[in-house]
Amino acid sequence: MVDIKDKFKEVFSVLKSELLNDPAFEFTDDSRQWVDRVVEYNVPGGKLNRGLSVIDSYKFLKDGEELSDEEFFLACALGWCIEWFQAYFLVLDDIMDNSQLRRGQPCWFRLPNVGLIAVNDGLILRNHIFRILMKHFKGKPYYMDLLELFNEVEFQTASGQMIDLITTIPGKKDLSNYSLSIHRRIVQYKTAYYSFHLPVACALLMAGENLDNHTDVKDILIEIGTVFQVQDDYLDCFGDPNVIGKDGTDIQDFKCSWLVVKALERANEDQKKLLSENYGQADKACIDKVKELYNVLDLQSVFTEYENQCHENIMKSIEAHPSKAIQAVLKSFWKKIYQRKK
Amino acid sequence: MVDIKDKFKEVFSVLKSELLNDPAFEFTDDSRQWVDRVVEYNVPGGKLNRGLSVIDSYKFLKDGEELSDEEFFLACALGWCIEWFQAYFLVLDDIMDNSQLRRGQPCWFRLPNVGLIAVNDGLILRNHIFRILMKHFKGKPYYMDLLELFNEVEFQTASGQMIDLITTIPGKKDLSNYSLSIHRRIVQYKTAYYSFHLPVACALLMAGENLDNHTDVKDILIEIGTVFQVQDDYLDCFGDPNVIGKDGTDIQDFKCSWLVVKALERANEDQKKLLSENYGQADKACIDKVKELYNVLDLQSVFTEYENQCHENIMKSIEAHPSKAIQAVLKSFWKKIYQRKK
Repeated sequence: MVDIKDKFKEVFSVLKSELLNDPAFEFTDDSRQWVDRVVEYNVPGGKLNRGLSVIDSYKFLKDGEELSDEEFFLACALGWCIEWFQAYFLVLDDIMDNSQLRRGQPCWFRLPNVGLIAVNDGLILRNHIFRILMKHFKGKPYYMDLLELFNEVEFQTASGQMIDLITTIPGKKDLSNYSLSIHRRIVQYKTAYYSFHLPVACALLMAGENLDNHTDVKDILIEIGTVFQVQDDYLDCFGDPNVIGKDGTDIQDFKCSWLVVKALERANEDQKKLLSENYGQADKACIDKVKELYNVLDLQSVFTEYENQCHENIMKSIEAHPSKAIQAVLKSFWKKIYQRKK
Repeated sequence: MVDIKDKFKEVFSVLKSELLNDPAFEFTDDSRQWVDRVVEYNVPGGKLNRGLSVIDSYKFLKDGEELSDEEFFLACALGWCIEWFQAYFLVLDDIMDNSQLRRGQPCWFRLPNVGLIAVNDGLILRNHIFRILMKHFKGKPYYMDLLELFNEVEFQTASGQMIDLITTIPGKKDLSNYSLSIHRRIVQYKTAYYSFHLPVACALLMAGENLDNHTDVKDILIEIGTVFQVQDDYLDCFGDPNVIGKDGTDIQDFKCSWLVVKALERANEDQKKLLSENYGQADKACIDKVKELYNVLDLQSVFTEYENQCHENIMKSIEAHPSKAIQAVLKSFWKKIYQRKK
């Protein structure tokens, strides 16, 4: 039996080859090769969870009915659009964050002869999404909705990224900017819309649904996405580096993490002073002081309580939904997230 | 009488204020202020020729009929979309080219506290275009065509930029990559589509035309745009710095300029050797040697002959067009370009 991930990857090859022969541009051999490398290096190497979840969700919405070859291909194509979307943002994020590694290999802009050309490569990846949508969805009744969906989610993601960037401007380290309300906005806009809402919205559109009738689904997915990011923040400090595959750096990077926000909420004046003196410093002694404070403030229990409370609320919201198929979609997302250790 | 440029600028204020209150994102005070600065610094400070030409073209297409207030506003909004489009590319180009100045002031990314956040600001500017289109054109019969037009032109512009970047990779200076065919592709895709085709295509869509019936108009505009860029290349070396307002730097920057391409076409082996030894060097003696060779090869006459030949061809193509209104649009573009000195 062919694995669904293998079939998904076959669709990648088809899409890439179409893009390398797009008649809207007269490729030279060099430029065709360049785009090939940009795509191969940046698009397919992740866990593909977001892309695959379009197919899963669509299957639930079809109540387990067998998908036609065309339906399967189109669900894969939308899944790949989300993977392309992520590649576009990751390529540019890595430049802005001056990162070294991504998915275990050097960031694209770090490669010899790439450098800041990577900015334009990010734009090329972004444009591929709309080339794919036009080629495969033009004429479908939900084509326009798809265009608007991707445009809206892109706007939200860039806006979330903006808040993240301007609240963390180097040289302006000021913890008083950090609050749960800022944290929620960054998480919701920068991550949750494209990672959780976008895949399900794509599946709903393919299934002929009007997204205006499903704002409740969107709200639940944003909630799930928020928990996902809070877990990320938690694991960055309290996770097992051998399990999550990296050492956390949020404390030294002065990130607006859920942990620092909760610590600020619970700290007395002395503890706040300790935080502002040590948060965002590369020195190991500073990092350890912050971690010690997190323990004193018992943030592990605060997190566990938060996660359990969210579990209760989210399950209640899901089970209140009138459609069993949509319940199945949402439960499948939540099951992968709840109590994850990596 | 209110100048058309003033009325155009009033529309800018309306659009900006709508964007700063876009309900698709929950602005904080800081982020609203940030976007305000991004837009004010980068969008309205140019000559606005591209934006204004949408209004001019639309007026010609309406055969001089008075525009309704709504029509005027919409033509302005499309004009501003093109100005936003240009701001998006200029902000990112300046980062990639490591430029100092743009429109007489420091490039956006050079400002304190901006830096590489400018990459994301470029994306925000890009996204504004689709927010404007959605707000003001959703429901119009040509809405989908507008979305596709901007998507296609963006893809073409980024692709042209890619060819430009990868043929000029620093440390890989190799003149044998430069040819008229590469030059034509860079110019056509990087500049001509968005500067010449896009404004007229917007006006045609607003006038209810199907763009598929106007590929001849597109071809002529691309031709005009190509001459425009060749003039730019020419003036960079042979123009009067007091008239064009800057000193040319194409020679030291190893640009794929029309001049170096023509020089390579006409040079003997010794002259080619001189070019590869001196082109792309910052040293004044090297620059002077290149300029001397341009004189020896009589590139000034080659240019004049090229421009006159284009004039003849373009006028013939324009006059062969069946619509007098479209003839007027095209002649108005060409008149502003032909024999320009700045």
